[in-house]
Amino acid sequence: MERADWIACDWGTSNLRVWALDAGGAVRDARVSDQGMGRLAASEFEAAFLDLAGDLIGAGPRDVVICGMAGARQGWCEAPYLPVPARPAADGAVTVPTADPRIRVRILPGLSQTQPEDVMRGEETQIAGVLAARPDFDGVMCLPGTHTKWVRVQGGEVVRFRTFMTGELFALLSTQSVLKHSFDDGWSAQAFLAAGGEALAAPERMTAALFSLRAASLLGDVAAGSARARLSGLLTGIELAGARPFWEKHRVLIVGGTDEGDRGALLTRAGARVEHTNARDATLSGLVAAHALNGETP
Amino acid sequence: MERADWIACDWGTSNLRVWALDAGGAVRDARVSDQGMGRLAASEFEAAFLDLAGDLIGAGPRDVVICGMAGARQGWCEAPYLPVPARPAADGAVTVPTADPRIRVRILPGLSQTQPEDVMRGEETQIAGVLAARPDFDGVMCLPGTHTKWVRVQGGEVVRFRTFMTGELFALLSTQSVLKHSFDDGWSAQAFLAAGGEALAAPERMTAALFSLRAASLLGDVAAGSARARLSGLLTGIELAGARPFWEKHRVLIVGGTDEGDRGALLTRAGARVEHTNARDATLSGLVAAHALNGETP
Repeated sequence: MERADWIACDWGTSNLRVWALDAGGAVRDARVSDQGMGRLAASEFEAAFLDLAGDLIGAGPRDVVICGMAGARQGWCEAPYLPVPARPAADGAVTVPTADPRIRVRILPGLSQTQPEDVMRGEETQIAGVLAARPDFDGVMCLPGTHTKWVRVQGGEVVRFRTFMTGELFALLSTQSVLKHSFDDGWSAQAFLAAGGEALAAPERMTAALFSLRAASLLGDVAAGSARARLSGLLTGIELAGARPFWEKHRVLIVGGTDEGDRGALLTRAGARVEHTNARDATLSGLVAAHALNGETP
Repeated sequence: MERADWIACDWGTSNLRVWALDAGGAVRDARVSDQGMGRLAASEFEAAFLDLAGDLIGAGPRDVVICGMAGARQGWCEAPYLPVPARPAADGAVTVPTADPRIRVRILPGLSQTQPEDVMRGEETQIAGVLAARPDFDGVMCLPGTHTKWVRVQGGEVVRFRTFMTGELFALLSTQSVLKHSFDDGWSAQAFLAAGGEALAAPERMTAALFSLRAASLLGDVAAGSARARLSGLLTGIELAGARPFWEKHRVLIVGGTDEGDRGALLTRAGARVEHTNARDATLSGLVAAHALNGETP
């Protein structure tokens, strides 16, 4: 095992991901554990970090730069949201006191917005990572996930953003609602696109269109593989209807996302200009940029 | 205890409700148990019925008229959906074989629609009950519930209908989603109406407006009692946006419903003509009408 010059951490609700980096930003080691913020009390974060990455530190002192839910009020140490407009993952990092003198821990803050009310925590670092490679980016980034973010980025700043509960609604409806009885494991890209187009054109029909998935299955009128894809299409379609002010006038860069539920194809059909980039790389690049910006701890 | 001339049953997913009636339709006894369709195998329905109502039957034979989920494919005996347009709770009752010769059991069918796909099972009996008192009703009925129904009724028939998952979405989001952390037990009628108006005017923003409930609570910007009411308002508002073709041109009769989440007030604000009637009475009246229509079993 290599000793790190510093450690980058993406500490989410479910997982802790660390990268050991040398001074030039090259990755020497990368690890992941299930010690997410959701299962830890504030007093347990330092031990969870050292369990996963302690052997990478050596004699120290080593910088540790963290993004994500570790900075939430229920996390290790609160890093209060910065209001937009703001440069992402640039200002407002909070220094966390540690018992182990070998680590110097800083947590990056999320971003907030008051009109309309919205927050992000973690995605700002992905955005900073994309901006590190494309500092002149002027457009919209879409970060798909449990809570999908649509973000207007201009002049190196997050100008405004909106969060859509698309992923969480899909998970709830497909596993906890009456619709779960109507699903198989299949997936029809065609059904996704058709349902997405319907919801984009008539978002007000969504909660009735959801029940039609159940009715169609009771009436024996569902092609195998289409029910889950239609659910995803309906939810993605209403998201795109709500996000129209973002993508109608600006090019869209989709940061990460899954193979199923292809937002890009639906957006392209709707007339948007769409590009893609990888999310994992973006988070790490953002942490590297934040570390470089904050410099060495004195 | 009085012996019944016949027994009316509303057999839902969660509960079994029975009324013992005399030949004139007067209620001699009324009982309820938790032996809903959801917890019974097909072979267990007869015993569950006799447990609750056996002492009301006497020597028999007695008619038993049932509406609701007992007629589903997973119920006691399937009563296949009748396609609309159709007179509700009139035709298609299925006779169920029983081991006990003292009962003659009939289950009323639900209604189905293919364009767009939809089903109801139980609500058709409430509609028949309203029509028994108002046979010339020409308008729209709204039946609030887990799956709220909007129904165009004309000439004694259900012409078309749509089901909205408003109640189920409210239950899932308020107890299973990230929003649950933002709720107290309070209720603000004003917040309900404001959120309902927003969703009615801009339904495409719904899945972002949902996340704003969470963001507002993280940012400390929520009045006590308003988060749950806003969630209900947003879901009711998008329902009303989708149901606009029903209420824009016709008067609306709301059959039952709860005190919270006042659809009637929101509809009235939107310009609809709204009346109310009681749901429990409607179900019993519909069963009485169905029994009268089907006459005595020979």
